Amino acid sequence: MPLERLACGLDLGGTKLLGVVVDPDTPGPPLLEEKVATPAGGEAVVDQVVALATRLREQAEARTGAVVGAVGLGAPGLVDRAGTLRYGPNLPGVVDLGLAGLLGERLGMAVTVDNDATCAAWGEHERGASQGHDHSVLVTLGTGIGAGITVKGEVLRGANGFAGEPGHMIVDPSGPLCPCGRRGCWERFASGSGLGWLARESAHAGLASGVVARAGGEPEDVRGEHVTAAASEGDPEALAVLDRFGWWAALGIANLVDLLDPGVVVIGGGLAEAGDLVLEPTRTAYRRLVFAAPHRPEVPIVAAHLGERAGAVGAALLAAARR
Amino acid sequence: MPLERLACGLDLGGTKLLGVVVDPDTPGPPLLEEKVATPAGGEAVVDQVVALATRLREQAEARTGAVVGAVGLGAPGLVDRAGTLRYGPNLPGVVDLGLAGLLGERLGMAVTVDNDATCAAWGEHERGASQGHDHSVLVTLGTGIGAGITVKGEVLRGANGFAGEPGHMIVDPSGPLCPCGRRGCWERFASGSGLGWLARESAHAGLASGVVARAGGEPEDVRGEHVTAAASEGDPEALAVLDRFGWWAALGIANLVDLLDPGVVVIGGGLAEAGDLVLEPTRTAYRRLVFAAPHRPEVPIVAAHLGERAGAVGAALLAAARR
Repeated sequence: MPLERLACGLDLGGTKLLGVVVDPDTPGPPLLEEKVATPAGGEAVVDQVVALATRLREQAEARTGAVVGAVGLGAPGLVDRAGTLRYGPNLPGVVDLGLAGLLGERLGMAVTVDNDATCAAWGEHERGASQGHDHSVLVTLGTGIGAGITVKGEVLRGANGFAGEPGHMIVDPSGPLCPCGRRGCWERFASGSGLGWLARESAHAGLASGVVARAGGEPEDVRGEHVTAAASEGDPEALAVLDRFGWWAALGIANLVDLLDPGVVVIGGGLAEAGDLVLEPTRTAYRRLVFAAPHRPEVPIVAAHLGERAGAVGAALLAAARR
Repeated sequence: MPLERLACGLDLGGTKLLGVVVDPDTPGPPLLEEKVATPAGGEAVVDQVVALATRLREQAEARTGAVVGAVGLGAPGLVDRAGTLRYGPNLPGVVDLGLAGLLGERLGMAVTVDNDATCAAWGEHERGASQGHDHSVLVTLGTGIGAGITVKGEVLRGANGFAGEPGHMIVDPSGPLCPCGRRGCWERFASGSGLGWLARESAHAGLASGVVARAGGEPEDVRGEHVTAAASEGDPEALAVLDRFGWWAALGIANLVDLLDPGVVVIGGGLAEAGDLVLEPTRTAYRRLVFAAPHRPEVPIVAAHLGERAGAVGAALLAAARR
């Protein structure tokens, strides 16, 4: 194997840091993979990323004889084009953290840093569900909503690197308050937190007894996972909550399609693991919500293929290609 | 002047067809310009475009000795990548009209056809308000809302050519019905029709007496132009309506910035002619509505420079560059 062929990618989340080593020229699963906890505070985060990247690099080089010639990181929040995490609401105490500079210095090589969902979109584009589509959108439905966009076969970063934050699209100005300070952001409805909120609404109205039972009997304790668990056993009230959830997911997806006209929409994040329980109501509602549906090809709405590895794989491949 | 240097561009609107001839290599206003009425029906539209393009071409060639080597058309609606107008709600009786093919045959040369706002965005990018910005968004606030997007210094067309339809982004699912069949599309609020609707709401509440007087005394007869006329004379109730209008305009612009991260947002269309009366309340509200405002550079929201010529100039330049 020639030198400098491997790439290390890391995906920094609010609770975990996942690292992989991939061969950019050979499709297939990562050669190595390791997951550790995300510590609190910017300095500890940098230490943890350096430690994991170093460990993966040494293991990969020892095992293959090749050299890890590129390191990429996906970070949750607004990452500017210099690789600084300007704003990362899911990493308490972290603001204006110059990740690319700090990591590059510590690792002794250039490190590319992008938004985590942008990395995931690239991972799915290169090795997952959006392969073959020059124009694609990845939406991650997790605690919040993230997104990554490809245009003409390249990632869309925007003027500052901040493109792809539809979770805070306002879709209902009189809707529930968002921690961001505004009302009715899309992720108030169509994220894991949003599913919990929709379910608690139903629970307080006495329309989700099976879901409430799974939560221990208290409507206020209902979370998204209680809904998907009850729905997977056919509970009709839980399925009705997922119908409402799918409607909200579809509303934002329709807005994205109206604006970006992708060839495919890939759904990742924790909620994608519920599969068709979430995707089918979303597809059904989408057909009614997208503009001019009879006049455009239907856009496939599909589950991500790479699961939780998408961000790390994409970060590695973006670093290897430096694009 | 060398041969084949000039380009003819046409902008097909619901009521008028505007044509220009430009020199793609030399900045400056169009060499020729003519405006005619848009006839009813697809066949008549094609005849009219052919007649105007032929006239402009002959005049330009007679006057300059150069040859018109490219013809481009901007059309209102969903234009696919083959240059077929799939859906044009503002052109009654027109659906699935193969403009590029029909015009190319009649004019004896390749004709590029794009969405009208996409053309306008390119015109402003090359010769107007978004020059120097690789990532830009043009929003036209007219009877409805159109948009054109540039990414990395090129127009964004999307997988099918349909990118850039934020007018039908749903921003208030319980809002007023849209002719498209859904509720609360952005253009229900932030277009000329939307301004009229907001003003009639105020009028019926007894909060727009000066505006109602300008409309002849009947609240139901209030239109957007009555608001801008009253506001330009300092009528505080009209200014309050424009504040609400600016809030809705800003909401959609904030959604676009969250998603696309442009370096500039250019406002065109009839409402841009009201200048700061419309733009100032929009800018003020935008600062409160965009996600993570303290962590990102402020995006300038500016008036278009080319006015009603932007679409035709952009169509000519896109045709000349074939991109």
